[in-house]
Amino acid sequence: MQSTALRHAIVLRRRPTGEPSASDFETIETPIPTAGTGEVVTRTLWLSIDPYQRGRLSARKSYAPSVEIGGVMEGETVGEVLVSGDPHFVPGDLVVGPRGWATHLLSKASTLAKIERTAPPSTYLGVLGMPGVTAYSGMKDIGQPKAGETAVITAASGAVGSVAGQLAKRAGARVVGIAGGPAKCEFVVDELGFDACVDHRAADFREALAAACPNGIDVYFENVGGDVQAAAIPMLNTFARVVMCGMVSQYNAAEFPPGPNLGFVVGKRVRIEGLIVFDKPHRYAEWRALAAPWVADGSLRYREHVIAGLENAPAALAGLLKGDNFGKLVVHVA
Amino acid sequence: MQSTALRHAIVLRRRPTGEPSASDFETIETPIPTAGTGEVVTRTLWLSIDPYQRGRLSARKSYAPSVEIGGVMEGETVGEVLVSGDPHFVPGDLVVGPRGWATHLLSKASTLAKIERTAPPSTYLGVLGMPGVTAYSGMKDIGQPKAGETAVITAASGAVGSVAGQLAKRAGARVVGIAGGPAKCEFVVDELGFDACVDHRAADFREALAAACPNGIDVYFENVGGDVQAAAIPMLNTFARVVMCGMVSQYNAAEFPPGPNLGFVVGKRVRIEGLIVFDKPHRYAEWRALAAPWVADGSLRYREHVIAGLENAPAALAGLLKGDNFGKLVVHVA
Repeated sequence: MQSTALRHAIVLRRRPTGEPSASDFETIETPIPTAGTGEVVTRTLWLSIDPYQRGRLSARKSYAPSVEIGGVMEGETVGEVLVSGDPHFVPGDLVVGPRGWATHLLSKASTLAKIERTAPPSTYLGVLGMPGVTAYSGMKDIGQPKAGETAVITAASGAVGSVAGQLAKRAGARVVGIAGGPAKCEFVVDELGFDACVDHRAADFREALAAACPNGIDVYFENVGGDVQAAAIPMLNTFARVVMCGMVSQYNAAEFPPGPNLGFVVGKRVRIEGLIVFDKPHRYAEWRALAAPWVADGSLRYREHVIAGLENAPAALAGLLKGDNFGKLVVHVA
Repeated sequence: MQSTALRHAIVLRRRPTGEPSASDFETIETPIPTAGTGEVVTRTLWLSIDPYQRGRLSARKSYAPSVEIGGVMEGETVGEVLVSGDPHFVPGDLVVGPRGWATHLLSKASTLAKIERTAPPSTYLGVLGMPGVTAYSGMKDIGQPKAGETAVITAASGAVGSVAGQLAKRAGARVVGIAGGPAKCEFVVDELGFDACVDHRAADFREALAAACPNGIDVYFENVGGDVQAAAIPMLNTFARVVMCGMVSQYNAAEFPPGPNLGFVVGKRVRIEGLIVFDKPHRYAEWRALAAPWVADGSLRYREHVIAGLENAPAALAGLLKGDNFGKLVVHVA
């Protein structure tokens, strides 16, 4: 067990306009907190960087409260228990659930889950964690891919998309990824096993997407929005399902552009449904029981993009919103 | 049993651009058809005029084939059996199901349903027919209004909206109609029993809709689109359901305007789903069993707008698309 004299935490200095930058944040040093009854202090090992965090920087009303100016920035971590005021945890336990961009976090014990050391701890922030559960819930509750159907997965090399596509593949669907750049597309096909992947940065993106989906689209898993969405929607088949998980292309935008005329929803009897993993707490244990053996036997593939050092978290988030990461973005804090 | 020497039928002369007019159609006279084995000839009593019929005039790809130039215009009828080549029907039977804007129709017997004489025959084209089943299916399968929720019903005085709203009211929801003009709004509240109705033609429409829905919108039943949809969408609550039944405001349009940015679907976990009653054949018998007693005891209210004479069907359809009708539009043919 290691310890440091002071806690480093990254707090919000001002709300960014457009792309967040390091100067929107500052690092403060405070004493390491102590744990009261029912509380646990953890030393942060891994910090998760996810697209939803951009929403927390905005004062815009959302499904979750904004981070306040001067408040510690929001993010899930994997940590090691340093001090426990709760009988369920002892120092040295690994847990997932402490929240904040900080080297040490004080949590209510009820918000933490002990994790197995059999899988790498960082996977509890990715393939076995929130993004994996998001993909699983989206496919189970909304997408429901079937054998012979075509599923199109946006941000296909990312934390959510990579799992969503592999689940559609397991269900017997033809799976087409959309990703930014040839390297990601190659990974999506060669490593993740999708049937095809289309580069949304290529000049012939629309033609390539149409060629990759000769039978149209039955399941569209949306993480991106914008031009990618505009290309996919006219290709939806009758009774298509659209899993609305995110629209990262507009998270830095002050104003949102218009979207599709909804006439197609009637004529094609499309179902479009939004998904926030907060609503699916019951799916975590279910997903981990299902997916941990697949991770262990290598049949569920994942890729992590590791940034070293808490101080680099702001730049990591800014990069994520531009698609600079390649795989699940995590910060190795200690 | 009456008979006429010739059959009058309205055929499509040319595809209308924008609003259909009488000159897009012409009346032809042909001999009354004869019925082969398994076929039935009916004399048309009532012809249904519905918004979907605009789609049949267009060459645009849709969920159902277009009417061909020179072909008899599409529409459901109630008729009296004149000649039967099928043991299930005898002359004099009343049936719903023959299709076409014509005084006499030849149908496969398997496409017809005998109707009770206990309810007025025209109700099998409205409250007990396709529009009623549409409203019922939309609320049962998608809208699912619950006690204490707010349901907003567009085209609230129309064939579908009037039933949809009364079903939401029976479910215990606060029900707010949207209709064109003070007379329709008065009817929606006083006769149909909605809690409120907002005139979408009034200058203060948006403010009035907001005032009528102090707790936001949980179920939005869409028949209209356009500005009405644009006003309603920002008022949707978390977990709202949008029943996409039609968007009549754009049925005469050559190009569709953009729609809403879909970011709200994610953040509010909205479900938007399209509905075509063709997919719900199993709901007809279910709905008639449920609704016929309500029609008989007066607890399910409906209003018909009757046009006399088959020759006036084209003008009736053009008027329907502008909201000129007040209640379920039917043509009294004979």
